[in-house]
Amino acid sequence: MPFIEIHMFEGRTLEQKRALTKAVTEAMVEHAGAKAEGLHVAISEYALENWARAGVLSVDRKDL
Amino acid sequence: MPFIEIHMFEGRTLEQKRALTKAVTEAMVEHAGAKAEGLHVAISEYALENWARAGVLSVDRKDL
Amino acid sequence: MPFIEIHMFEGRTLEQKRALTKAVTEAMVEHAGAKAEGLHVAISEYALENWARAGVLSVDRKDL
Amino acid sequence: MPFIEIHMFEGRTLEQKRALTKAVTEAMVEHAGAKAEGLHVAISEYALENWARAGVLSVDRKDL
Amino acid sequence: MPFIEIHMFEGRTLEQKRALTKAVTEAMVEHAGAKAEGLHVAISEYALENWARAGVLSVDRKDL
Amino acid sequence: MPFIEIHMFEGRTLEQKRALTKAVTEAMVEHAGAKAEGLHVAISEYALENWARAGVLSVDRKDL
Repeated sequence: MPFIEIHMFEGRTLEQKRALTKAVTEAMVEHAGAKAEGLHVAISEYALENWARAGVLSVDRKDL
Repeated sequence: MPFIEIHMFEGRTLEQKRALTKAVTEAMVEHAGAKAEGLHVAISEYALENWARAGVLSVDRKDL
Repeated sequence: MPFIEIHMFEGRTLEQKRALTKAVTEAMVEHAGAKAEGLHVAISEYALENWARAGVLSVDRKDL
Repeated sequence: MPFIEIHMFEGRTLEQKRALTKAVTEAMVEHAGAKAEGLHVAISEYALENWARAGVLSVDRKDL
Repeated sequence: MPFIEIHMFEGRTLEQKRALTKAVTEAMVEHAGAKAEGLHVAISEYALENWARAGVLSVDRKDL
Repeated sequence: MPFIEIHMFEGRTLEQKRALTKAVTEAMVEHAGAKAEGLHVAISEYALENWARAGVLSVDRKDL
């Protein structure tokens, strides 16, 4: 039943997304007693210029 | 006043979006007593590779 | 497949929620070609003090 | 950096939430190359009367 | 037109919420060219046990 | 700790986004007692055809 929304930077490969959504689903089944059948995981991808941390746009950060 | 966020696959036509947001707004007015005036409906579209069900990425499903 | 999130004030009755989620689901099926089976509608309810419009907290509005 | 929002029914224990958020974080680190440090996982809990599937409010379902 | 959703811990006073939503609205008007009139700000409050950072539930953190 | 999600039309410049996320972060620090360090602001941009107000798709509005 649950719906999980992952907000992260764009740039992951298809293979990463495949493994990630599978692992998150398994975590929900194992630890939250969810049934996999109706469980959805959606990935919202953001460009660097659309995400700020500590008031600094990611496109302006030196450590990324 | 309400805000409705629709998460779905990309690919609907402009005409479908027009009819959909109109119908959802009417449902809110009729059944939730909302005023249409300040009511927003936003559509977030996802690529097949950004949505998994039952741990399987939609791009890998045979039934879509 | 879609997930619809309704953000609105608290206070609707069970009967209103029943009719609302049914109507929104039907709108998705009719106008967006969605299948009802895996379609979820979730209602997030807000207290008046947790929603502002035009910079004014709803608890401070005279017209509500 | 990512933010993960888990929408599910209320009723999980503290121990389940502890294990769930830990496992989801590990999945993000392992499969999406995320750094744990700035990674947030938030749980939004819903009453049965605030979630519908296939147009049926969960409070009205016999199979839950 | 915009909709801003603030996810944070519960516990802010009414006065803080009043000032916060006003300031966020002003930031949108000044920096994003938004009109205040149709602009909504919603606050979603989380208990400590419903939010994890770096895989640690906030209820288990010593530094909060 | 907080996560702020801004849903708005696409079209703002990098400079506007830089100023906007900075101002929203400052509002959170000043009025909600948040620490800037772990505070994220994400911008979700919508095309005119993906946002309706009062049941009218923004692409069909004359006043935009």
